[in-house]
Amino acid sequence: MRPSGRAPDEMRTLSFEPHYTKHAEGSVLVSFGDTKVICTASVEEKVPPFLRGKGEGWVTAEYSMLPRATHTRGSREAAKGKQSGRTQEIQRLIGRSLRAVCDFKKLGERQIVLDCDVIQADGGTRTASISGAWVALRIAIDKLMAQGLIKEDPMTAKVAAVSCGIHQGTPVLDLDYIEDSAADADANFVLIEGGKIAEVQATAEGATYDEEGLLRLLRLARIGCERIFAAQAEAVARAKG
Amino acid sequence: MRPSGRAPDEMRTLSFEPHYTKHAEGSVLVSFGDTKVICTASVEEKVPPFLRGKGEGWVTAEYSMLPRATHTRGSREAAKGKQSGRTQEIQRLIGRSLRAVCDFKKLGERQIVLDCDVIQADGGTRTASISGAWVALRIAIDKLMAQGLIKEDPMTAKVAAVSCGIHQGTPVLDLDYIEDSAADADANFVLIEGGKIAEVQATAEGATYDEEGLLRLLRLARIGCERIFAAQAEAVARAKG
Amino acid sequence: MRPSGRAPDEMRTLSFEPHYTKHAEGSVLVSFGDTKVICTASVEEKVPPFLRGKGEGWVTAEYSMLPRATHTRGSREAAKGKQSGRTQEIQRLIGRSLRAVCDFKKLGERQIVLDCDVIQADGGTRTASISGAWVALRIAIDKLMAQGLIKEDPMTAKVAAVSCGIHQGTPVLDLDYIEDSAADADANFVLIEGGKIAEVQATAEGATYDEEGLLRLLRLARIGCERIFAAQAEAVARAKG
Amino acid sequence: MRPSGRAPDEMRTLSFEPHYTKHAEGSVLVSFGDTKVICTASVEEKVPPFLRGKGEGWVTAEYSMLPRATHTRGSREAAKGKQSGRTQEIQRLIGRSLRAVCDFKKLGERQIVLDCDVIQADGGTRTASISGAWVALRIAIDKLMAQGLIKEDPMTAKVAAVSCGIHQGTPVLDLDYIEDSAADADANFVLIEGGKIAEVQATAEGATYDEEGLLRLLRLARIGCERIFAAQAEAVARAKG
Amino acid sequence: MRPSGRAPDEMRTLSFEPHYTKHAEGSVLVSFGDTKVICTASVEEKVPPFLRGKGEGWVTAEYSMLPRATHTRGSREAAKGKQSGRTQEIQRLIGRSLRAVCDFKKLGERQIVLDCDVIQADGGTRTASISGAWVALRIAIDKLMAQGLIKEDPMTAKVAAVSCGIHQGTPVLDLDYIEDSAADADANFVLIEGGKIAEVQATAEGATYDEEGLLRLLRLARIGCERIFAAQAEAVARAKG
Amino acid sequence: MRPSGRAPDEMRTLSFEPHYTKHAEGSVLVSFGDTKVICTASVEEKVPPFLRGKGEGWVTAEYSMLPRATHTRGSREAAKGKQSGRTQEIQRLIGRSLRAVCDFKKLGERQIVLDCDVIQADGGTRTASISGAWVALRIAIDKLMAQGLIKEDPMTAKVAAVSCGIHQGTPVLDLDYIEDSAADADANFVLIEGGKIAEVQATAEGATYDEEGLLRLLRLARIGCERIFAAQAEAVARAKG
Repeated sequence: MRPSGRAPDEMRTLSFEPHYTKHAEGSVLVSFGDTKVICTASVEEKVPPFLRGKGEGWVTAEYSMLPRATHTRGSREAAKGKQSGRTQEIQRLIGRSLRAVCDFKKLGERQIVLDCDVIQADGGTRTASISGAWVALRIAIDKLMAQGLIKEDPMTAKVAAVSCGIHQGTPVLDLDYIEDSAADADANFVLIEGGKIAEVQATAEGATYDEEGLLRLLRLARIGCERIFAAQAEAVARAKG
Repeated sequence: MRPSGRAPDEMRTLSFEPHYTKHAEGSVLVSFGDTKVICTASVEEKVPPFLRGKGEGWVTAEYSMLPRATHTRGSREAAKGKQSGRTQEIQRLIGRSLRAVCDFKKLGERQIVLDCDVIQADGGTRTASISGAWVALRIAIDKLMAQGLIKEDPMTAKVAAVSCGIHQGTPVLDLDYIEDSAADADANFVLIEGGKIAEVQATAEGATYDEEGLLRLLRLARIGCERIFAAQAEAVARAKG
Repeated sequence: MRPSGRAPDEMRTLSFEPHYTKHAEGSVLVSFGDTKVICTASVEEKVPPFLRGKGEGWVTAEYSMLPRATHTRGSREAAKGKQSGRTQEIQRLIGRSLRAVCDFKKLGERQIVLDCDVIQADGGTRTASISGAWVALRIAIDKLMAQGLIKEDPMTAKVAAVSCGIHQGTPVLDLDYIEDSAADADANFVLIEGGKIAEVQATAEGATYDEEGLLRLLRLARIGCERIFAAQAEAVARAKG
Repeated sequence: MRPSGRAPDEMRTLSFEPHYTKHAEGSVLVSFGDTKVICTASVEEKVPPFLRGKGEGWVTAEYSMLPRATHTRGSREAAKGKQSGRTQEIQRLIGRSLRAVCDFKKLGERQIVLDCDVIQADGGTRTASISGAWVALRIAIDKLMAQGLIKEDPMTAKVAAVSCGIHQGTPVLDLDYIEDSAADADANFVLIEGGKIAEVQATAEGATYDEEGLLRLLRLARIGCERIFAAQAEAVARAKG
Repeated sequence: MRPSGRAPDEMRTLSFEPHYTKHAEGSVLVSFGDTKVICTASVEEKVPPFLRGKGEGWVTAEYSMLPRATHTRGSREAAKGKQSGRTQEIQRLIGRSLRAVCDFKKLGERQIVLDCDVIQADGGTRTASISGAWVALRIAIDKLMAQGLIKEDPMTAKVAAVSCGIHQGTPVLDLDYIEDSAADADANFVLIEGGKIAEVQATAEGATYDEEGLLRLLRLARIGCERIFAAQAEAVARAKG
Repeated sequence: MRPSGRAPDEMRTLSFEPHYTKHAEGSVLVSFGDTKVICTASVEEKVPPFLRGKGEGWVTAEYSMLPRATHTRGSREAAKGKQSGRTQEIQRLIGRSLRAVCDFKKLGERQIVLDCDVIQADGGTRTASISGAWVALRIAIDKLMAQGLIKEDPMTAKVAAVSCGIHQGTPVLDLDYIEDSAADADANFVLIEGGKIAEVQATAEGATYDEEGLLRLLRLARIGCERIFAAQAEAVARAKG
């Protein structure tokens, strides 16, 4: 039995609230249960130095948690003067995941920055961030296309992410903080609509797992991402509405 | 005529949404029109080194803006590795303002950290932060009192803040971003319920002003802060509800 | 009775020693009693990025205290690797104050950097810095005009600053360190010759104050700044001598 | 055909040179072909704050590349003043991997720091680092056991890592730099002797891959890690020699 | 002929102005011609961690230049967030030089920090700093002895420093900025009263020099340091006066 | 008697292993006994800003020690976020020493960066670094000349460095760590083939020394550098082999 009473393959309540903030070209508040992340997409008419003059665009991401997004207050990275290794690892993952579904030639020589700021954390902040960042990016690109700044859609597919883990011997989907703290193994899957895998990060915590365990987690992730893809589609439709 | 159509002594729509996040001992989402700030109060059972063993508490504050809280994306302070002078100036002001209404002996040897994170900016982020931080602090202290950890209420009064300025020759209350950008003079007032002044920061931008101008702005600030005090009281009552 | 025996509206011994160092385009050692600050004005034939190509100039300031300018040694900011919030707040104030009396079109596309380095502190370092920086700036601009690099005088007026406070119930002018440590309220006024206010920063320390209190402090500040304006004029005349 | 002429399941020349430096409690120069990493294990009779007084030990890792370990010189992280996100991600992975095979109660209240410094890079620096760090750790722990400081062996198994990827449509083992630059997908596997998985990090680069692709890479990784386990055993035996 | 018209073995006008600032336990303004440095000695009743509980003291130094101490403004190290290599090299040299004449057992478990802040630079700032730091230290220790906090004098001798160089083929003493910029070789000597050498730092600039050249520079340094020792003695006597 | 049993004028076993790493234009592993340093020379087709467009080149150096190059592990400078004063002092010395034998006009508008990374330390790391850096630079320049990118040899002579000290009253050559820790005086000499001195850094540790002492150390340094020049020549010949 999961602490939340959920079935092993049951996700938490999913919600995407588009246009959550007014200045960004794309924005959404994504909730995976009590995990809440503001994702914004900012369009910049410039690219990083290594791309200048090549006619191609770029997508990058930054991630942060408000100091009291968590059970006990963490110190503010801006005050400490550096981003933690965990923060950098997560924001690199978000950027790679979104770049996996973006055709940079079609985007043109501009950069889109995805900011994922966790306002409340209850496990799965990186997977909620990736899933939400896709919605923010989609809205921003729809806007660029509506303005005629981009001719062909640079986004090749949806991308979503979810965590799975082995909790008291049972593979479970979308771990909340209580499960995550006690999980024997913890894996984050970034999947692309249509069945492809963008990224797998599976770590044994305490115990280790085998091939069969990895595949069972992947199967759960497919179930979760199908639900996320549907919610993303619904949110984007609502945003256009 | 103000760009927003407001009367000179009219504030924007004020709102305090208590218990906005679930982990902090006190939290609120404060809105001054389109300016929205998450304020949380975190209780820590320790004090800064200079107070250790004195039986007295402390209140401090940190402030930040999400990178895309503004019209164009600002760079993330955690990524740059330092807080700007503006950020430090504002968080010092928030801390001083709340300390002005707190009796540290009654608080006991503990620290309360007020985090003010701007998720959307439209002028007046520091005044909204102070006003919201008071609500978060009040909720946190009510909780400590309900738990019996504090015997006597350490909070001596309400504190609120509002900006005033001279816009096209007219003194106006609660400037939004458009007015703020074009104001001839800009002043932030931190007032204490009952008529006292905690802090005045009045700066001439472009033009300068005289004694009479300063007093007219102060009078507007009194009108604004009365409205904020009422909304704070209502929010705290609702939080207890 | 004030600890120094001064009357409530009496300033400390004021002195401006122009040409204190030889390399800067303008320099002065300003003393407000035992508070001593070296102010230099450095002319740079470039402007910050946001002004390039606009034909306008800029004035900015930096502030620091020697580690042992104070009663006990403070740690050196260069060794700690960052400027404190207090330092940044003060240098932003100095810059704003001087910019309030400078016409940037007449200055032309060049920047003047005002360095205020406190070599001995006894209260009022920021107000001495502003008052001294004006003299250094005036000398530097006179030099540029004498060289024919500037046609019309970009300086529109004198600017001076002084602190006032409520000490044991009495409003007093130009607080020294002993008074400042015990003051109930502390205000810094930046005034422009002719009666206008450039900036007011009034903070309640311990107690708070009301409208009448603020006005009484402002009246004292006017008395002090008149004395400073006279001393500035005399120093500039001597510098030309 | 691979650029190096290797078969798809063929590793590069593997070598572990134990006692490579004289001061560390354990040290080894590990080579995966032209990738060369100095791994040292340093025993410290203290633990991080969160473990103090619990009677348990800790294992952590740091990673770096000499500036000219690569084709073109990279800037030195110590000179830039911060470690890159890539460096932090890798050193966190090394630490987690080694902790997966260490019983901290048996280690006792001491910390072992694993330093992995790449002196020449040709792809696979993180997997060589993990594999080499195990040897350095094993030698250091053997020394502690020989000195009677540890009674029971805290190491529960061997751990090794290898990269696999899809190169021109073919899954291949132990990518060198040329293959890595052109790979469609790139995965790092950290495996534990006996068949368990400690960590999988699989990233699509350009293309994405499916379940079958992931399993084929995992099968190659098993082949590679068996070879590494054998070489580790031989090196440890030689070190004791 | 030297640009200043001095004889090869002639120093610039030397001056030590004791008690230059009022808070420090020892302070002096030292001038070597137009090079002016404020040196203060601050007594702290604590020692660095490596000396705690050993009953021995420590002497350390910090060095800085005001941004406009030089011909063109240098950027402020506190604003850049780090001390330059040059600054660190110089402050390490000052500390070593003063430690060479201090008996730490007699000093007792306290630290004296020597701050050398250059307010005007014209060559030889490090040698003026060392020579001035000795006076500040002497005054501070005399004060500790007068207060009975130290029984026996911990200072074993005077220490002074001077630069010498080869200018247009001629060895010269106490280079000013013009000579220093054009010198073929530049050497700093730290000498101890009585004939011993504390430190030699001799660098070829452009050309190199031989053994005989080095000895000739050393002989000039002896002449200069004798003059400095006399001026130090006179300043200390005046300080007691 | 020296702890190592060496004669006072006897160097440790010297070795230069050219082409130690494969990517750098020049590389060598230099050993002075158990002190081992990897020196690489990286050619960059750009120069620092102050040299742009002048047709002249530059040589600069960076130095570091692996954390466990020493008896006890030192903290990693990249992790601490800054280079120590010692590191900066040493890398400035290495750069100056090599620049003393390089004609920048002949080098052309390019920069060569010398990286000296100590993998094992036993005293004399800076002198081994300078001596090794010369070999790496020589190899890199020979390569540029062989490619026809440089017409005339920009290197004017060999440069080598060695430490000398007074150990238990006896002047000795090439101190190892044990001697260095106990030496009364410690001097580093950078000498140029043919008899000239590039740099002397002589520091009294504990005791001080006189003119005669300095000359005796210099005479030992000449003996040592002759041996190093011979070994450098042999290594360069082997590198060409």
